[in-house]
Amino acid sequence: MQALVLNNGLSYRQDVPKPVAGVNEALISLKLAGICATDLELVKGYAGFSGIIGHEFVGVVDAVNHPEHRHWLNRRVVGSINIGCQHCYNCLHEGPEHCQRRTVLGIRGKDGVFADYFTLPVSQLYIVPDEVSDQAAVFTEPLAAALRVVKQLEPLTVTTVAVVGPGRLGLLIAKVLALAGYDIEVLGRSEASLALPRQWQLKTALIEEVADHQFACVIDASGQASGFRQSLRILKPRGTLVLKSTFSSTEPLDLSKIVIYELTVLGSRCGPFADALALLQQQTVPVETLIDGYYHLNEGLTALTHAAQAGVRKILLQG
Amino acid sequence: MQALVLNNGLSYRQDVPKPVAGVNEALISLKLAGICATDLELVKGYAGFSGIIGHEFVGVVDAVNHPEHRHWLNRRVVGSINIGCQHCYNCLHEGPEHCQRRTVLGIRGKDGVFADYFTLPVSQLYIVPDEVSDQAAVFTEPLAAALRVVKQLEPLTVTTVAVVGPGRLGLLIAKVLALAGYDIEVLGRSEASLALPRQWQLKTALIEEVADHQFACVIDASGQASGFRQSLRILKPRGTLVLKSTFSSTEPLDLSKIVIYELTVLGSRCGPFADALALLQQQTVPVETLIDGYYHLNEGLTALTHAAQAGVRKILLQG
Repeated sequence: MQALVLNNGLSYRQDVPKPVAGVNEALISLKLAGICATDLELVKGYAGFSGIIGHEFVGVVDAVNHPEHRHWLNRRVVGSINIGCQHCYNCLHEGPEHCQRRTVLGIRGKDGVFADYFTLPVSQLYIVPDEVSDQAAVFTEPLAAALRVVKQLEPLTVTTVAVVGPGRLGLLIAKVLALAGYDIEVLGRSEASLALPRQWQLKTALIEEVADHQFACVIDASGQASGFRQSLRILKPRGTLVLKSTFSSTEPLDLSKIVIYELTVLGSRCGPFADALALLQQQTVPVETLIDGYYHLNEGLTALTHAAQAGVRKILLQG
Repeated sequence: MQALVLNNGLSYRQDVPKPVAGVNEALISLKLAGICATDLELVKGYAGFSGIIGHEFVGVVDAVNHPEHRHWLNRRVVGSINIGCQHCYNCLHEGPEHCQRRTVLGIRGKDGVFADYFTLPVSQLYIVPDEVSDQAAVFTEPLAAALRVVKQLEPLTVTTVAVVGPGRLGLLIAKVLALAGYDIEVLGRSEASLALPRQWQLKTALIEEVADHQFACVIDASGQASGFRQSLRILKPRGTLVLKSTFSSTEPLDLSKIVIYELTVLGSRCGPFADALALLQQQTVPVETLIDGYYHLNEGLTALTHAAQAGVRKILLQG
């Protein structure tokens, strides 16, 4: 089968053996996959992964390993990506994304979805409702990650929130927070980057024009050290910073502001797939407008180059 | 009068004019002053301060500006160090330490206490109870800062806490948390650094020997980038890191662990003086054992050099 394989550099191959569904697994045929910032980082060497990359997908179940899973056959599915050991304290109390022995689809110890076929335990699968298009369903994973922020802010007395970084994740976070009743401002570095947030009916501003200490809550979805610094700058004393995107900083970061202003920093990662699918079914988040291009798997290297360009939001791969 | 003056380098001077108490201020004669890590940072250029440094003190009120403050005369006092504008949102809601227009004794816009005399608004002063010695009273400011951590942990379901950094602040934090009922472990880099924590009846361990992901709550009082990294390493997923000490990092810091493990980071700074004095009155925190040396003001430069040595906890200046 075709696949994009990372092994000291990324290559497109046609000779990769088709995988076989393991115990309690489904074999899934790819319909659409999304290229995520993490994929671009993996190619640069982040996390030391080698294998087939890719973890955002919608596909169709092609085979199962056990007769009791036959009802999954031919179902259109999305799937959560952290596969925990199911026995440790973290699996039982915090979720599989915090299991120390976990594998992660296309990221850690398990081949991913930039391929004709891939496998995943059926317990990780969610059926896509008929009303949700493939183009929308492929956003389930990032939309779930956005919904995690809503859960984390719920116990706080926060009403106004700045979202730094008008990329795909920043926009999803801003929109779900707006739908949850928060007063949102999306902050970007250029006018061009703010056009789509405005089309989504979100308030916007250029971050350079925001005065110091304006927001009691800031979500940093910029994926860049500069965005982190700007986020600290615009926070009020005793404010809350939700750190959503990872970046490997090559420059020193000054954390003394966290102490001096007694800030709270909340790390935020994966979220609930079922809630994300329910939201996609309501069609209140126009996720399809985030798509900047489609490529076939055999154009995968070009697709990743496109996805890495500044201002590009979502590039999809077609199975 | 004598004073230690920072102005492109620190110097001892005998020709500094004796200050005059301003409106609602007291003129205070120094009894004892403590050298703090912040003083050492100021000398290196942190915060760009010039003037007389020093902010941990016990002294005696020598003069007041208005007859209605006469009852302060000859009282032995300590004093809080942030002088807010008293009118802004932060002064009214968060406290003077978060006022953007504040001055800070010996740190920002106001001469400090490494001098024969200094001034402070009487509203910032606290009378030292007779049972509290000068040697204990001079620890009111750092003990208050330690008590701030207790306040911040109160709403959390945390019972076991690691304190990274067995220096003066780390020890005070560990002791007040232990007195508040927490199960505490003090972590240091050398056996020698753990002797005093053990004398204080605190559990200790070498940080290198602590396995990854052992603690749901870690207080970083190390004042060093390496301590911050170790703190992240030993935290459990979704754990809480209280960041207590500032350090100006000259090396890149990887914040991705905050996201990947969904950590909560709480910045922590100044605390309640009245509570600290009440605790000193109970004599349950043996603060005097932190003292590693006394110097006169005219030996001030030597005193700061001594205070900067590894493993030295508290150096005092005598007025």
